[in-house]
Amino acid sequence: MNQFREFCRNLADSKPFTGIIISLILLNAVIIGLETYPSIYISNQNLFILADRVLLWIFTVEILIRLIGSKSISSFFKEPWNVFDFIIVASGHLVTGGHYVTVLRILRVLRVLRAISVIPSLRKMVNALLMTIPSMGTILLLLGIFFYIYGVIGTMLFQDVAPEYFGSLHASLLSLFQVVTLESWASGVMRPILEEDPSAWWFFVTFILIGTFVIFNLFVGVVVNNVEEASQEENPSPADLKLIEVQKELAEIKQLLKDNRRT
Amino acid sequence: MNQFREFCRNLADSKPFTGIIISLILLNAVIIGLETYPSIYISNQNLFILADRVLLWIFTVEILIRLIGSKSISSFFKEPWNVFDFIIVASGHLVTGGHYVTVLRILRVLRVLRAISVIPSLRKMVNALLMTIPSMGTILLLLGIFFYIYGVIGTMLFQDVAPEYFGSLHASLLSLFQVVTLESWASGVMRPILEEDPSAWWFFVTFILIGTFVIFNLFVGVVVNNVEEASQEENPSPADLKLIEVQKELAEIKQLLKDNRRT
Amino acid sequence: MNQFREFCRNLADSKPFTGIIISLILLNAVIIGLETYPSIYISNQNLFILADRVLLWIFTVEILIRLIGSKSISSFFKEPWNVFDFIIVASGHLVTGGHYVTVLRILRVLRVLRAISVIPSLRKMVNALLMTIPSMGTILLLLGIFFYIYGVIGTMLFQDVAPEYFGSLHASLLSLFQVVTLESWASGVMRPILEEDPSAWWFFVTFILIGTFVIFNLFVGVVVNNVEEASQEENPSPADLKLIEVQKELAEIKQLLKDNRRT
Amino acid sequence: MNQFREFCRNLADSKPFTGIIISLILLNAVIIGLETYPSIYISNQNLFILADRVLLWIFTVEILIRLIGSKSISSFFKEPWNVFDFIIVASGHLVTGGHYVTVLRILRVLRVLRAISVIPSLRKMVNALLMTIPSMGTILLLLGIFFYIYGVIGTMLFQDVAPEYFGSLHASLLSLFQVVTLESWASGVMRPILEEDPSAWWFFVTFILIGTFVIFNLFVGVVVNNVEEASQEENPSPADLKLIEVQKELAEIKQLLKDNRRT
Repeated sequence: MNQFREFCRNLADSKPFTGIIISLILLNAVIIGLETYPSIYISNQNLFILADRVLLWIFTVEILIRLIGSKSISSFFKEPWNVFDFIIVASGHLVTGGHYVTVLRILRVLRVLRAISVIPSLRKMVNALLMTIPSMGTILLLLGIFFYIYGVIGTMLFQDVAPEYFGSLHASLLSLFQVVTLESWASGVMRPILEEDPSAWWFFVTFILIGTFVIFNLFVGVVVNNVEEASQEENPSPADLKLIEVQKELAEIKQLLKDNRRT
Repeated sequence: MNQFREFCRNLADSKPFTGIIISLILLNAVIIGLETYPSIYISNQNLFILADRVLLWIFTVEILIRLIGSKSISSFFKEPWNVFDFIIVASGHLVTGGHYVTVLRILRVLRVLRAISVIPSLRKMVNALLMTIPSMGTILLLLGIFFYIYGVIGTMLFQDVAPEYFGSLHASLLSLFQVVTLESWASGVMRPILEEDPSAWWFFVTFILIGTFVIFNLFVGVVVNNVEEASQEENPSPADLKLIEVQKELAEIKQLLKDNRRT
Repeated sequence: MNQFREFCRNLADSKPFTGIIISLILLNAVIIGLETYPSIYISNQNLFILADRVLLWIFTVEILIRLIGSKSISSFFKEPWNVFDFIIVASGHLVTGGHYVTVLRILRVLRVLRAISVIPSLRKMVNALLMTIPSMGTILLLLGIFFYIYGVIGTMLFQDVAPEYFGSLHASLLSLFQVVTLESWASGVMRPILEEDPSAWWFFVTFILIGTFVIFNLFVGVVVNNVEEASQEENPSPADLKLIEVQKELAEIKQLLKDNRRT
Repeated sequence: MNQFREFCRNLADSKPFTGIIISLILLNAVIIGLETYPSIYISNQNLFILADRVLLWIFTVEILIRLIGSKSISSFFKEPWNVFDFIIVASGHLVTGGHYVTVLRILRVLRVLRAISVIPSLRKMVNALLMTIPSMGTILLLLGIFFYIYGVIGTMLFQDVAPEYFGSLHASLLSLFQVVTLESWASGVMRPILEEDPSAWWFFVTFILIGTFVIFNLFVGVVVNNVEEASQEENPSPADLKLIEVQKELAEIKQLLKDNRRT
């Protein structure tokens, strides 16, 4: 049993094994892409279903090998990417049909995301990107309050004037997201409202000024964070290297002085 | 009396008290959000009015507790956030009705902003954001002059060609704000004007080039400011730590030399 | 004569004099703004013309005072801002009428720009902004080549398909400027062309990818420049201050050693 | 023969030679630009064809001179810019006619790109820009996976609702590129879909949030890279200069100590 475990661990860590899995994920991606073309899908429906089944079972075996190869089941599921892999593959077995066709198909597309968990450099980068989210917590909360207040005011003021944009609170929030991306905020959203309520410009202008300012500061925070981290990971600077030499020199001088004293 | 003051101060600083106030602000926010849905509001109008009254009185008591708990009334009102809280709550009592329904409702929405004054991390962040504004003074003045000149020229040139965008100076300034956000500046604003005045492109192209350049520099200034502040707040760098060791070493050597001399 | 010169110099440098000039420029700006409202202008035409004449003569006297107060005429005209002031004011006297009404009016608006030359902090900032332009030389040349090549190709390919956007080389360059600002590049420019020439997407996608990448790098260069300058202007860092102390200490040790030797 | 080689090398490196080539490339650019105006082209067709032939042969001779002047043919083709020059000029001879008129004309426009290979500062800058691409490898791969997954899901969900945007996988990818540039993403793409499928907003909002976040991080990486490189190329900092002095001082003290010992 232990020997089999050892075998699984070595297999899971071996380069060719990872290479094959990456290739199969790629193949899976291509198949899923081809399926979206109705002309190709309809004439090869059975082939597509077969390929999907085969790939799902290969991925299941892969997960099992990595699960057996790990120290214990709990250590395997401690790594969030393993949990992610497990859920993606397991869901392929559970949701196999009936009414949930769309859910099923979207779950199958998400299998392409497994490329991130399998390719180490991608995994590292996504981890780094996810790690920047907690540091944004406070500013996202601020942005949320800001959106909510403008959303409620917008609904109150323009509910009757522009029901397609500000008809309800959730419609307003979506419209405000559109406005903060600066997409058709004037030509599409504000100018038709201005015709009925000429004083409405303050709502949009202040929203854009405050919104872009806060979002810009959110981004600046991320940049500053990144620059700092980069400078901390840096190799020792020329000043540091010179200081090490200075310290050596001082130690020698001290020794010389002590020798002088003794003599 | 002093004992009551002490009690108020401790209460105002206690975690559960702050927690309850944050929850009530959140509840207030949810209520205000639900009110924007006419179907919900009309069938529960009395409940909404009651909840609003109750919350307003709770917030009034909260402000009073914090006011009594502070050293003196003047020290309480020195802190701008306390003034803000006071105005928001007081206005709820003053503007209770009649014709100012919209003003009243907007003031009630602004109560959600109290979340900023109550949650310390938000308060700190908003203070930091507000502090970057003075350093932008000169560039905002420059931007103002630049907008004003283009506004006057735009009104002079396109008053008759495009009255909906450049009919008056204030309409022009709003249109220029739209242009500087790059929203429909060509498809919506410039191209219809070009058909009547084919040389009008220089107005828009120079405005966008100068405007985005100045605004970009405004932002760069903020970034540079932030990076500098971040680097100043930094813990001592490795070079600083090494220099402290070097200074200690030098002091020892000096002592050794002085000892040598004496002997 | 020399006494008069001295008087002019002192007057030109005095705070109240600058304050009055700034106020008059502001007044001039307000007058020019009011003139754009036909209802106000027509009923007070004579007043506006009078105010303009009076202000022009005051500014002329101001320039003369500063000219007399300067060491020599050539030293006065060495400072570009003085040349700018002189041209703005002189043009007010030269272009006084006839057919060039628009030119005349635009020149009068530009008098507001004198605020930059009169307010020192604005002057410093605009100088700083203008100084960043030479460092952009090479990348602007690259951008020019890139725009020209895409402009020629665009004209060749889409001259007949979309004459309103790519009818001639100069129309193409304007359209490409619109595309690089991402304004209606797809909905307005590309999609109608795609209907006739489904392979045209590569033209727009590569143009946007390369264009935004190059412009982004242009901006990064400016940021890097600014950050560096800011860090060079910085007060001595803690490490620098410590090093000065270390150098003092070393000098003392050296002196001690030399004293030891002598004894 | 060797003497002729020497002559070619000196000629290729001489300033006037480069100057003439740059002028001819400029002339070529102007000619190509004029050709796009049908009125000018048709009345001077023979002149344009002649000029093009003459310039092509001059450039051919130029390449030959530089080829002969180089150490060996292989060393000439090791430099990618030489290969680029060679292909651009050679293609002018090969593709001289028949059906490939458009290809031929585009190739002729690309001759303007030779300005980059001939002007050293441009060449250096483009090399620097190209060098930043490999460091973006992983994030571009991530962006690719992200676009592909959203492309497949978008095609699956909106194939029937909005066939002009999501009719096929490649149409979806183009639409997603449009959405990520924020061009008409709401007014043009999302809102018409929302009318049929009110829950479609999550697709666009999450795509924009993730997409802009990842692209922004891509850009931040480039900025950080540039800032670091800039700071490494920097002249020695004041701290470095002081440390060099400190090291000199220490060496002197050590010498003094050794001298003391001997005496």
